[in-house]
Amino acid sequence: MKVLVINAGSSSLKYQLYDMRDESVLASGRVERIGMDSSIVTHEPVDKPEVRNVSEILDHVTAVKRVIDMLTNPEFGAISHLNEIEAVGHRVVHGGEAFSSSVLVTQEVKLEIRRLFDLAPLHNPAHMMGISAVETNLPDVPQAVVFDTAFHQTMPNTSYLYPIPTVLYRRHKIRRYGFHGTSHSYVSAQAANYLQKPLESIKMITCHIGNGASCAAILDGKSFDTSMGMTPLEGLMMGTRSGDIDPAIVPFVMNKEELTLNEVNSMLNKHSGMLAISGISSDMREVTEAMVDGDKNAKLAFDMYAYRVKKYIGAYAAAMNGVDTIVFTAGVGENSVALRKAICEGISFLGIELDDARNEQRRKDCREITKEGSRVKVLVVPTNEELLIARDTYNLVKQSRTS
Amino acid sequence: MKVLVINAGSSSLKYQLYDMRDESVLASGRVERIGMDSSIVTHEPVDKPEVRNVSEILDHVTAVKRVIDMLTNPEFGAISHLNEIEAVGHRVVHGGEAFSSSVLVTQEVKLEIRRLFDLAPLHNPAHMMGISAVETNLPDVPQAVVFDTAFHQTMPNTSYLYPIPTVLYRRHKIRRYGFHGTSHSYVSAQAANYLQKPLESIKMITCHIGNGASCAAILDGKSFDTSMGMTPLEGLMMGTRSGDIDPAIVPFVMNKEELTLNEVNSMLNKHSGMLAISGISSDMREVTEAMVDGDKNAKLAFDMYAYRVKKYIGAYAAAMNGVDTIVFTAGVGENSVALRKAICEGISFLGIELDDARNEQRRKDCREITKEGSRVKVLVVPTNEELLIARDTYNLVKQSRTS
Repeated sequence: MKVLVINAGSSSLKYQLYDMRDESVLASGRVERIGMDSSIVTHEPVDKPEVRNVSEILDHVTAVKRVIDMLTNPEFGAISHLNEIEAVGHRVVHGGEAFSSSVLVTQEVKLEIRRLFDLAPLHNPAHMMGISAVETNLPDVPQAVVFDTAFHQTMPNTSYLYPIPTVLYRRHKIRRYGFHGTSHSYVSAQAANYLQKPLESIKMITCHIGNGASCAAILDGKSFDTSMGMTPLEGLMMGTRSGDIDPAIVPFVMNKEELTLNEVNSMLNKHSGMLAISGISSDMREVTEAMVDGDKNAKLAFDMYAYRVKKYIGAYAAAMNGVDTIVFTAGVGENSVALRKAICEGISFLGIELDDARNEQRRKDCREITKEGSRVKVLVVPTNEELLIARDTYNLVKQSRTS
Repeated sequence: MKVLVINAGSSSLKYQLYDMRDESVLASGRVERIGMDSSIVTHEPVDKPEVRNVSEILDHVTAVKRVIDMLTNPEFGAISHLNEIEAVGHRVVHGGEAFSSSVLVTQEVKLEIRRLFDLAPLHNPAHMMGISAVETNLPDVPQAVVFDTAFHQTMPNTSYLYPIPTVLYRRHKIRRYGFHGTSHSYVSAQAANYLQKPLESIKMITCHIGNGASCAAILDGKSFDTSMGMTPLEGLMMGTRSGDIDPAIVPFVMNKEELTLNEVNSMLNKHSGMLAISGISSDMREVTEAMVDGDKNAKLAFDMYAYRVKKYIGAYAAAMNGVDTIVFTAGVGENSVALRKAICEGISFLGIELDDARNEQRRKDCREITKEGSRVKVLVVPTNEELLIARDTYNLVKQSRTS
């Protein structure tokens, strides 16, 4: 079965085509600037050169049509006919309390995703446009949705409730949802597999550290707590997001700087974090380089960033009354030797013996970076959210055919 | 030397008169409903019955005059003439970045406390009224101010800066200050004394858990991090305060419920925390009783409360790369056997062996509640902020006389 994975944003759409026989990627690409003058399609077939195409793409329906054109192009396409696409899987950021696993798209599912627009106003409407655009272009192909929040639906209420008036939970569903669930789920399973132990037997903390970043405490194989909250703003310091701050800062700043609700949201989500403190970049690579060159603000940003990860690891070790395995994943987690070192050396009391040589290896596979015999094992596990979306979609469609 | 300690609120004023020869309390009391119809003075002399007096007290000047009247009353007073009061010490909540220790009151100090009105709009103006009222009533008596924030001024910038645009720190001094500093300082010193070790040699976490609550990480004898932030809202779940929440909840709720800045502040400070979740009370005793009687919301509130303390202890152990001693203090910390048990048993992995019999003893002195040989020692240390204010005041006045 060939499965098309789609991650639709409000003005962009990323895609991968998987051959599920060997889980290989046949082609991938992205459409950018949807609804603007000069939209760009970048198509990357495997073993063939990248193709770029600039034209006017006014909506997601046209965007999906272009993707299909690319995939079926005789010269640089990956399939000979669109009917080879047997299923489409979508990333959906917010599944609220309704979805604790991936599901096939139905009328009810679409209604529920719409109901969640309020909680994910930037993401869910874009995902719905992607789903509708596929319906228009591929009316007979089953679609599945894979939610960033689903994995965290196992959290106990002591983790997911906020100590605020309970009417806010009842009326507006204000609670911790957590995000990056697909990644936390994927890397925790990969880590258990690597360690050749049942996931259920491992107290694990997974650190998904990319431009967005979150930690999860995984107990009995399930998400027990996670640092992102009602929105992806809470928790760790990120590229441009503040993460945890005194909530009283929000009204204080709104008053002092006469900011609107949108402006304060934008400040905390887009102009804070690593970017704000370093004054250089939201990108860990650039900040680390500047730090090595002696830039003090870059060093401060790096140190604050590492410090806040350490505190979450400590908090989640306490939450589970212990930790056996810590996993680093995503762009920064997989690639920043310096950050992993700063974190692991700073919390060696937990029983972490970092192996510098292992930590410094630049590899693309799942690996341990602690010494043989380290009581707490630290792993680097490359994440692959698209593959998990493809797998879930494949399994759901296969099941629906046999049932 | 006799020292009068004053804690002035906007409509209340608490006082204690200390004899510093033996640090004994000669009398204490409080004035309530200042500026209202029927103000109440409650005076508690040592070894004599309490005296209550209802009258109209329109301002802090009159309130202080009444306190002096009480203290010098021939029948139930503690001194024969007001000139026996040789110094007055005030609690001041916010010392900003200007004060890292207690100081004698001067014109400059008063100016600086005024500059901090913005950061502590509910507290500092009331404290200033207290200081002025003493000046009026006791013009020749030296006064000292003891700040809740001062002890935490040793925090490194990685602890006190927030990952938000740095202009907010430069322009409005938005940073972590921390509070309860007098208590964290006092109990950490008491704990070191009890353990007969230099405070500098102990990695300590102090948990001041009263109606307000905060944890502090104490490294090399100094505050390294603390859970309250720019305001006393951040950190632990408290009696009526939310503590940490996703900061995005603030604008979300303001929008959904059409709340003003004051209303959202009030919601998070006065209608959240234990009160909101239990639906019963902000008082741990009442919530624990209801929990024992089978109330589910009370149990949820208790569990969330304990869970959040555990996470902070874990986070601060990580912040210091280890912990040797954990201290519980203040109303709840000193008295809630159940809370201490829930916390300590939940984080036994740190090397905590709780001694149930010791934990269950109801005593008023400094004591250990872990078993002999527990790698991490847990102590209960009664706090005494008033005594520390009296001591600081006494020392400052004594020094000024000899210099």
